[in-house]
Amino acid sequence: MMDKVIREIEKRRDGYVDELAEFLAIPSVSTDPERAADVRRCAAYCRDALEKIGFSTAEVHETPGHPIVTADWSGAEGAPTVLFYGHYDVQPVDPVELWTTPPFEATVRDGSIYGRGSADDKGQVLCHWKAWEAHFAAHGRLPCNVKVLLEGEEEIGSEHLAPFIDANRDRLASDVVLISDSPMFARGVPSLCYGLRGLCYMEIHVRGAKSDLHSGSFGGAVANPAQALARILSGLKDHENHVAIEGFYDKVRPVSERERAEFGRLPFNEIEFRQQLEVPELVGEAGFTTLERIWARPALDINGMISGFTGKGAKTVLPGVASAKVSMRLVPDQDPDEIAALFREHVESHAPPGVTVRVENLHGARPYLAPLDHPANRAAARALAKAFDAQPVFTREGGSIPVTVTFQEELGTTSILMGFGLPDENAHAPDEHLDLENFHGGVLTAAWFYEEYAHNGK
Amino acid sequence: MMDKVIREIEKRRDGYVDELAEFLAIPSVSTDPERAADVRRCAAYCRDALEKIGFSTAEVHETPGHPIVTADWSGAEGAPTVLFYGHYDVQPVDPVELWTTPPFEATVRDGSIYGRGSADDKGQVLCHWKAWEAHFAAHGRLPCNVKVLLEGEEEIGSEHLAPFIDANRDRLASDVVLISDSPMFARGVPSLCYGLRGLCYMEIHVRGAKSDLHSGSFGGAVANPAQALARILSGLKDHENHVAIEGFYDKVRPVSERERAEFGRLPFNEIEFRQQLEVPELVGEAGFTTLERIWARPALDINGMISGFTGKGAKTVLPGVASAKVSMRLVPDQDPDEIAALFREHVESHAPPGVTVRVENLHGARPYLAPLDHPANRAAARALAKAFDAQPVFTREGGSIPVTVTFQEELGTTSILMGFGLPDENAHAPDEHLDLENFHGGVLTAAWFYEEYAHNGK
Repeated sequence: MMDKVIREIEKRRDGYVDELAEFLAIPSVSTDPERAADVRRCAAYCRDALEKIGFSTAEVHETPGHPIVTADWSGAEGAPTVLFYGHYDVQPVDPVELWTTPPFEATVRDGSIYGRGSADDKGQVLCHWKAWEAHFAAHGRLPCNVKVLLEGEEEIGSEHLAPFIDANRDRLASDVVLISDSPMFARGVPSLCYGLRGLCYMEIHVRGAKSDLHSGSFGGAVANPAQALARILSGLKDHENHVAIEGFYDKVRPVSERERAEFGRLPFNEIEFRQQLEVPELVGEAGFTTLERIWARPALDINGMISGFTGKGAKTVLPGVASAKVSMRLVPDQDPDEIAALFREHVESHAPPGVTVRVENLHGARPYLAPLDHPANRAAARALAKAFDAQPVFTREGGSIPVTVTFQEELGTTSILMGFGLPDENAHAPDEHLDLENFHGGVLTAAWFYEEYAHNGK
Repeated sequence: MMDKVIREIEKRRDGYVDELAEFLAIPSVSTDPERAADVRRCAAYCRDALEKIGFSTAEVHETPGHPIVTADWSGAEGAPTVLFYGHYDVQPVDPVELWTTPPFEATVRDGSIYGRGSADDKGQVLCHWKAWEAHFAAHGRLPCNVKVLLEGEEEIGSEHLAPFIDANRDRLASDVVLISDSPMFARGVPSLCYGLRGLCYMEIHVRGAKSDLHSGSFGGAVANPAQALARILSGLKDHENHVAIEGFYDKVRPVSERERAEFGRLPFNEIEFRQQLEVPELVGEAGFTTLERIWARPALDINGMISGFTGKGAKTVLPGVASAKVSMRLVPDQDPDEIAALFREHVESHAPPGVTVRVENLHGARPYLAPLDHPANRAAARALAKAFDAQPVFTREGGSIPVTVTFQEELGTTSILMGFGLPDENAHAPDEHLDLENFHGGVLTAAWFYEEYAHNGK
């Protein structure tokens, strides 16, 4: 069966990059209100692409936010049903001046395709589109039943996805959810991810005087909101990089000895990791290795901060306001709402005198852990081994894919995380890219997965 | 003599606001390279205005930066010579969205004229132009000899003024320098300022990884430059708001008991001051009053800081860089170069691990103290009393007018600081404005000053 599918893939392979470039050319930045029409256009593009592949039921659904695209094919009687989830929205491109080539004009350099969304997540979504296309072309059918769910709000918290899933339980009912939105462990090391960190994303607003003041005429007599914010931010961690928020670690599940041992066996080179990032040293929570810090321990980061005059030159201003975005990555069994409350309490109780502080909860996501022995995980492992000619490893991941929690809570369905990106492909930064060898490996893996899962999945 | 001058002022008074609006309409923002042509246009405007008033020698001088405008009239044989100094450049207008009316379209509201440069310093410069105009119109001459020096780089450190003064010592030789670029103590309280703070303006640049990273994939394992910057900034002050830089206070001249007593007698209401600024409480160095903190004690303020994503919404980025502008207001006998070195040493030695820190010295200015009993100070006190019908007070000021130090060092000449702005007129902030009653009082004061100083100045 698969010989013919693989021939179809080989036949089409040379056109895949142009198709991906077309998909990447749509600037579907979900957080930017000015891009709303582009996001909508991207949804229509997905529907049309699915129709063309062979999903006659492809459909765009309106939500109060950006649209959701679904499709399904249920011609594989007796075979299990896979719900494929992906997202067609992308991160903002700031600072756009740091891109080597324009973010929405995909460019191939050194064996990678560069463009916003190449790794996260359009490139990985396309792997499945091309796998389905090849199956349909080879046999007029897919090996198992496939439902497709593509959203346009993944990068802004998926606000309207859970209500949609809740209202479409039957339409989305499946044996497993399959997601390709996580990185491989490393080049040549195909990976299945069984754990994700959650997220609690907050913003702190500090106000001093009613307006900006002349720093000469007022400096020394009025609290400086930037200084107050710096004090608050500095106090969020102690000198050993433990988060200093009272109660923050109370529900953290300790890293087990078995996991520590398994993480330790992975081909991870701290020196290379440090050199790739060009940092003088790696810094993190005392008592843990780098992989433990990223995968199994919570973290707190300032994502952005701004106050006063930030242009060129010297403006002698005492700012009236200062603000910072701070996010915490959570691990089981931390709860984003509880952590948000602890954060708020900590910040408010540590506000210096002379300023007013407001804390805003921008969004949250629970952490996730999946069973390693799920039949779809085993099928995915076999597919990866065949496509990449290497035994896959089981990993966790530091990022969040909140929908895994949504699928668990709304549908009771486990998610399989089979990703084809690399960790250094700048998913949320300038010069985002996707290795083309992994992209083509991803197409092949996806093609194998549906076959393997159909025959050995139940 | 003065009756006729005052009649000339009354005759012209109704046209002054339109003339000021014309001056304010030129966006002479010296720090902005894109405004260089406007700055140049403003210099030509000043030359033309001085010519029209009666200075046949008005001239624009090129410098490696923005031009300098001079003029002189030396027809008052035997009378003393005043060097009037002002600046025609203005501060940037960011954040421009906080202006009620456009910064370069002057608007009169509630008895004040709103526009960038209205108080600092174009409005105050115009007071003298109008005084000279009235004297020339009334008597075809000025009471004393007047030299005019207007620069276009006051807001960016006056880099090319000292070399110009050095190269034009004879042209600028005078008995006293007169400057109207400081605020009155309060509405209805005409003031002469005898002390100014100096300035040391630094910028801190912190770099973490080579680029922005995904905060999920890397958060917890790599130093966050915004967090590192927050720690550095927080550590610049202790919890009693003393500057924590080693050696910072070593050369600070203590506030004398006499000054403390005099400051204490001024009509200053801390509650009103706090209410005007709309701050929950006044915060400053422990052990000093508000006026002492602003006038006679050094201060440290963050003027601006930026890192990562500062747009709307939530971007899960771990920033690659963070930076902050930090300035220190200095008092005698602190030296800006010494303070810059102490600051650099402190910041570099307190840099957290995992980041690289670079400290940049943007500019500096020495503090200044003038003799209270200078004949021009006494003449100015009489002029203020006549024009405002109130006894002037002697004050210090928290801001810097670095040229006072330049005149002292280059020409050995004392500067008299006779200002007509009010402290809450947003000199360096949105909605800068100048009270029109004080503006007209300023014209009258200036007219009286040259008369008083001519007759009783030597």
